[in-house]
Amino acid sequence: MNNFLTSKTQVINIGLASFSPPIRSHGGTSVDLEWRPPAEGNSASGLALAQLMSDGKINAANQVALERYQAAQPILVGVGVAREELKGLGPRMLLHSGPPIAWENMCGPQKGAVLGAIVFEGWASTLLEAESLVAHGEVKLDACNHHSAVGPMAGIISPSMPVWIIENTTHGNRSYCNMNEGLGKVLRFGANGPEVIERLVWMREVLGPTVKSILQHLGPVALGPLIAQALHMGDEVHNRNAAASGLFFKKLTLAGLEILAKLDARKLKDTLAFIAANDHFFLNLSMAACKVMLEAADGVENSTMVTVMARNGVDFGIQISGLKGRWFTAPAPFVEGLFFSGYSQLDAARDLGDSAITETAGVGGFSMAASPAIVQFVGGTPADALANTRRMLQITLGQNSAFTLPALNFGGCPAGIDVRKVVDSSILPVINTGIAHKLAGIGQIGAGITHAPLSCFVKAVEALALKGVN
Amino acid sequence: MNNFLTSKTQVINIGLASFSPPIRSHGGTSVDLEWRPPAEGNSASGLALAQLMSDGKINAANQVALERYQAAQPILVGVGVAREELKGLGPRMLLHSGPPIAWENMCGPQKGAVLGAIVFEGWASTLLEAESLVAHGEVKLDACNHHSAVGPMAGIISPSMPVWIIENTTHGNRSYCNMNEGLGKVLRFGANGPEVIERLVWMREVLGPTVKSILQHLGPVALGPLIAQALHMGDEVHNRNAAASGLFFKKLTLAGLEILAKLDARKLKDTLAFIAANDHFFLNLSMAACKVMLEAADGVENSTMVTVMARNGVDFGIQISGLKGRWFTAPAPFVEGLFFSGYSQLDAARDLGDSAITETAGVGGFSMAASPAIVQFVGGTPADALANTRRMLQITLGQNSAFTLPALNFGGCPAGIDVRKVVDSSILPVINTGIAHKLAGIGQIGAGITHAPLSCFVKAVEALALKGVN
Repeated sequence: MNNFLTSKTQVINIGLASFSPPIRSHGGTSVDLEWRPPAEGNSASGLALAQLMSDGKINAANQVALERYQAAQPILVGVGVAREELKGLGPRMLLHSGPPIAWENMCGPQKGAVLGAIVFEGWASTLLEAESLVAHGEVKLDACNHHSAVGPMAGIISPSMPVWIIENTTHGNRSYCNMNEGLGKVLRFGANGPEVIERLVWMREVLGPTVKSILQHLGPVALGPLIAQALHMGDEVHNRNAAASGLFFKKLTLAGLEILAKLDARKLKDTLAFIAANDHFFLNLSMAACKVMLEAADGVENSTMVTVMARNGVDFGIQISGLKGRWFTAPAPFVEGLFFSGYSQLDAARDLGDSAITETAGVGGFSMAASPAIVQFVGGTPADALANTRRMLQITLGQNSAFTLPALNFGGCPAGIDVRKVVDSSILPVINTGIAHKLAGIGQIGAGITHAPLSCFVKAVEALALKGVN
Repeated sequence: MNNFLTSKTQVINIGLASFSPPIRSHGGTSVDLEWRPPAEGNSASGLALAQLMSDGKINAANQVALERYQAAQPILVGVGVAREELKGLGPRMLLHSGPPIAWENMCGPQKGAVLGAIVFEGWASTLLEAESLVAHGEVKLDACNHHSAVGPMAGIISPSMPVWIIENTTHGNRSYCNMNEGLGKVLRFGANGPEVIERLVWMREVLGPTVKSILQHLGPVALGPLIAQALHMGDEVHNRNAAASGLFFKKLTLAGLEILAKLDARKLKDTLAFIAANDHFFLNLSMAACKVMLEAADGVENSTMVTVMARNGVDFGIQISGLKGRWFTAPAPFVEGLFFSGYSQLDAARDLGDSAITETAGVGGFSMAASPAIVQFVGGTPADALANTRRMLQITLGQNSAFTLPALNFGGCPAGIDVRKVVDSSILPVINTGIAHKLAGIGQIGAGITHAPLSCFVKAVEALALKGVN
């Protein structure tokens, strides 16, 4: 090739990036086209994709799904007890994050959390006994998402835990999430020592009932406007919830003081102090709000809109609206990020938790442009944060005008992931997330950024092509 | 000129912008150099500027002043009563914002606030009586800044008002500010009806003493880190204080609950509800923090660093470190902004208040890049906000690394305005501010952006040149 090169050569390179340097070294110009073959270059998947890509019925179905998501109004209506609120949660059942997984296949931190929850529930008095119970199948395990619930990281919801109850007042569906324990040695990151169990007991005995009483006085809390406000205050409501937690704290405090006479003052003080000390407190409300909005968009025939992204530390799973309830999975990726002192990538579990429901709903990593300060927690630069949001506009069906981003000149967040666009462009959904230690019993060791694996999306496209558009 | 123009003409135009179109119309290229003659093209001022511009003693003095400002630690140490805390505040004296001004020359809203404060103090029982008192010289008036104090908008501090006490623990100086009344019909915007006076009485009887008790329990509150945190949460701590107010509310609440037994529960509840309802509550703390930092930088011989920018709605005044206590004034400009429904520029008073102390300290308009959402309150776009901050880097001595801005990739805010750079570049300090109705008794009608007038800076340069560098 070099024989033909002169300083006047002008090339648009659609081949390997290594084609360009020789052209440039002869004084010519070469622009590398950023292009990758759709569907990983796999011809069967490519055929499936081509079949769906411009299908009018799919486009119409996606509009319906997106509109349902946008019309949903996530309202916090109260705090309940998991066993009383979650349909199908058996008396000796634990819910976990991500797609379904058997005990023996679980990652370290999820195992740690399962054992801790068994002790917390009093089904066993030691972690060893707990392990024997679950290994003998005497504790049932199921995915949170099968019960309209979500749980961050290990995502364990056990029957006696207090849960947030979120209702979508537009369509009437409800979602649930447990309450946030704070950072460090906590059950959701796989820690299960006595201090973890004691905190969970306090949350069940004091935090849950106190917040429940306050909410009964306060009445329904609209979470949409609260999230919108937080997005203007540097949160992306996945890995940064400082503003949203503060706004929610304010509401609880004022209502709590109004019914001071009815409450135990010590319990109120401890409850508010616990919430105030945890800038991630709102995360679990954000997740449940996103879940209820996406469940409203689920089950629209032919729709290729993603309604769930969830990880159990082994598998990453997605669901799409047009194939309700079916999981499409791939190995969970690792997370690139910043590690707490003394830890490194070698200690890290794979991507874990139902919290990617926030990205599925257009916030979290998709709204990183709203949250430049988050890069101090997850790594990268504010310019990267903006670029992440801009890139997500290429794989989404629209923008949610209820969640505007100042950095996009108040344009809505990228919302409604279209599996077709992901497969066609190979642009992967970006996720901000915490990092758990890979071993049971340790806890959080960092936070960072990861991407949903392409093959989940390829599988979903193939499944829909196989089923056919109706 | 046109006879010489061809399509190959390439011009850098240092003249009028109108030189360029003919060049371009002939296919040539012309770049307009954005340049204005220093010191408004006035030769005497230009000479004064040239004399000071590269003076080594001035540069050294400015480093000292900037370092003092940066080393200052603004700490909230308590709440007091103005007459007991502010030196030189006489028994029948009112302090006002901006440079000194006589009653008869005051703008409408400042007059309105003076009258309201006289009624509030009980020196007169009606606004009419109050006007007679002040017109007969029976109420003394002085500038807040003469008493190490600052007041937003009309800036009235009267003897019985509660005041924040801020101490700079590095250098030992103290500053003061009144407490924020909220938005709308409030004294600082010139309203003075019964509801305004009643609120001020409640602030004196309940808010001040309650917050004082809480702070006695809480101990000193470092305002620097709190401001730094707010700058990562979408505040610029002048016209947007939502995050800072929330962070401060959290601290007060937790400390208040700890001494619940000692406090009147109703008063605590009302105090916290009042603070929670006012996203601008922190403004007066931000102002006093900025004042205490800048006063630490004051009085450095030969320094051209600006230590005060303040407006009384008639005059805009600045002070510089090397000429301590001297005012350099120019007519106060109008504010371009967004008006509340039913009002327009025709109703607006001129730029008003001591709150430009925040810009003088590098926050407010200078840190607008941290606060893209503020443009919904003051006008413009997030890109303008970033451009404002970037432009201010050209007229400042350095960047304050304690107040980092995510949008500058965590670079410090532009800090320490150098009068020489303002005069040399004609780049005017940008100010975010509220807009009062021009008539007494009405209140706030909008918010927007304005710029300090160049001639204050020219006068300061001339005065220093006249005095000579020692």
